[in-house]
Amino acid sequence: MKIAIEKAKNAGTGWVSVKNSNHFGIAGFHAMMALEHDMIGIAMTNASPLVAPTFSIDKMLGTNPIAVAAPAGKQPPFVADLATTTAANGKLEILQRKNMETPEGWVQDVGGNTSNDANILKKGGALLPLGGDREHGSHKGYALGAIVDIFSALLSGANYAPWVPPFPAYVPMPTQQPGKGIGHFLGAMRIDAFRPADDFKKDMDHWIEGFRNAKTIQGEEKVLVPGDPEREMELIRKKEGIPLLEVVVNDLKALQQKLGGKLLSFKLD
Amino acid sequence: MKIAIEKAKNAGTGWVSVKNSNHFGIAGFHAMMALEHDMIGIAMTNASPLVAPTFSIDKMLGTNPIAVAAPAGKQPPFVADLATTTAANGKLEILQRKNMETPEGWVQDVGGNTSNDANILKKGGALLPLGGDREHGSHKGYALGAIVDIFSALLSGANYAPWVPPFPAYVPMPTQQPGKGIGHFLGAMRIDAFRPADDFKKDMDHWIEGFRNAKTIQGEEKVLVPGDPEREMELIRKKEGIPLLEVVVNDLKALQQKLGGKLLSFKLD
Repeated sequence: MKIAIEKAKNAGTGWVSVKNSNHFGIAGFHAMMALEHDMIGIAMTNASPLVAPTFSIDKMLGTNPIAVAAPAGKQPPFVADLATTTAANGKLEILQRKNMETPEGWVQDVGGNTSNDANILKKGGALLPLGGDREHGSHKGYALGAIVDIFSALLSGANYAPWVPPFPAYVPMPTQQPGKGIGHFLGAMRIDAFRPADDFKKDMDHWIEGFRNAKTIQGEEKVLVPGDPEREMELIRKKEGIPLLEVVVNDLKALQQKLGGKLLSFKLD
Repeated sequence: MKIAIEKAKNAGTGWVSVKNSNHFGIAGFHAMMALEHDMIGIAMTNASPLVAPTFSIDKMLGTNPIAVAAPAGKQPPFVADLATTTAANGKLEILQRKNMETPEGWVQDVGGNTSNDANILKKGGALLPLGGDREHGSHKGYALGAIVDIFSALLSGANYAPWVPPFPAYVPMPTQQPGKGIGHFLGAMRIDAFRPADDFKKDMDHWIEGFRNAKTIQGEEKVLVPGDPEREMELIRKKEGIPLLEVVVNDLKALQQKLGGKLLSFKLD
């Protein structure tokens, strides 16, 4: 991301495709690095294959997230960070630990039937592209995941599609490795390469205020701007700490017994 | 798009944000202009407000499509072209003319309740972001539509969000016009700015063949690669002509009576 930002300083925009990498953490974190330079930041990554394209039972893509951060003036920045699946794998893992079922449209079973089993990936099932089914637009979620794969891996020479190396231990290593490691794509666009940054940021304030003031459906609290929920949660967590599920605490205690060391204070969810 | 391609020839990539425009036609058409230059093409546009963000009853965004075209070697190119709503407005207009209901997750009524009424936009309803509801990820479709709006209009100085001028006659003109006309965003990336183009195209062939050979859900014919259905339909239509709905033919006949001229041959759907 630093290279993209440096290139943008010189050329107006900067774009970097990365190979031979691994899990890159939070996509939005990288995109947000552009903000202090009055640039729009873009970050995406491919990931181990857990997602079946529309009409398929094969896991051909990762959850392949896209993040975009754009600065505002008085308002906090716009930060969108989304897996191109109905739900990110981390959301599924929380349901697994809580022994809860998934909502509709998150996963399918080994035969491609709809399922609410949060453990279905371990039984040959798959995550579903954003939309969840054809009616709700899953073919578009599949296309978006494919775009992320092409930008991140085909453009860099990383592994792609079902041949991306796995993160989770229960996914077998791919038999082919057409590229190197996992791939990312990072971009930075200087706003003043297009338009005076102050004009842009004034319009962003107006844009954000427009969405915040949009009329809600009865019973809904407010209309959110991408980045709002994460920013609010960060403030709460910084003050109150991060609550942990009991199974996670037990895992940590088991690790402590095995490896020694000291378990610092924690808060149960 | 030609400017983006020329800029990419000199600098590796080229990016153009456009203001004071109107309907730009098929997003994929512009993205595909990059292909013959061994470039990846990107095209997006904002549009008149028909879409309610998650939790809202206000129409704040257009169907804001994203198109990406990437060249392959022996295989035809990858061409994704998708509205960031569950369904494009054109799909809704066809259902209106056929007097048919919409599938789940395409539209909501004036109060934000799910609806299957293809005419609901004329009654204060709205199109829904990709996903259709919160469970199926509509907050991500909303974020994607917002990204298109920022790239196309905030970066160029065009109108944005609910203040984009309308295409359809039944949508009132916005009271504010914070920018000029409608906005687009176009990009071209030289593949050999990242990696030898032949290596990329060989990998794209392998990628495309992988998806074509993915196992289907029982009862489904095949797994599609973005661009396949449009390419197949183009061949059929070039041979057999474009079938028209009777209501469209009647509209054309009414126009002919009013304006004179000659109605060429047509084929009923």
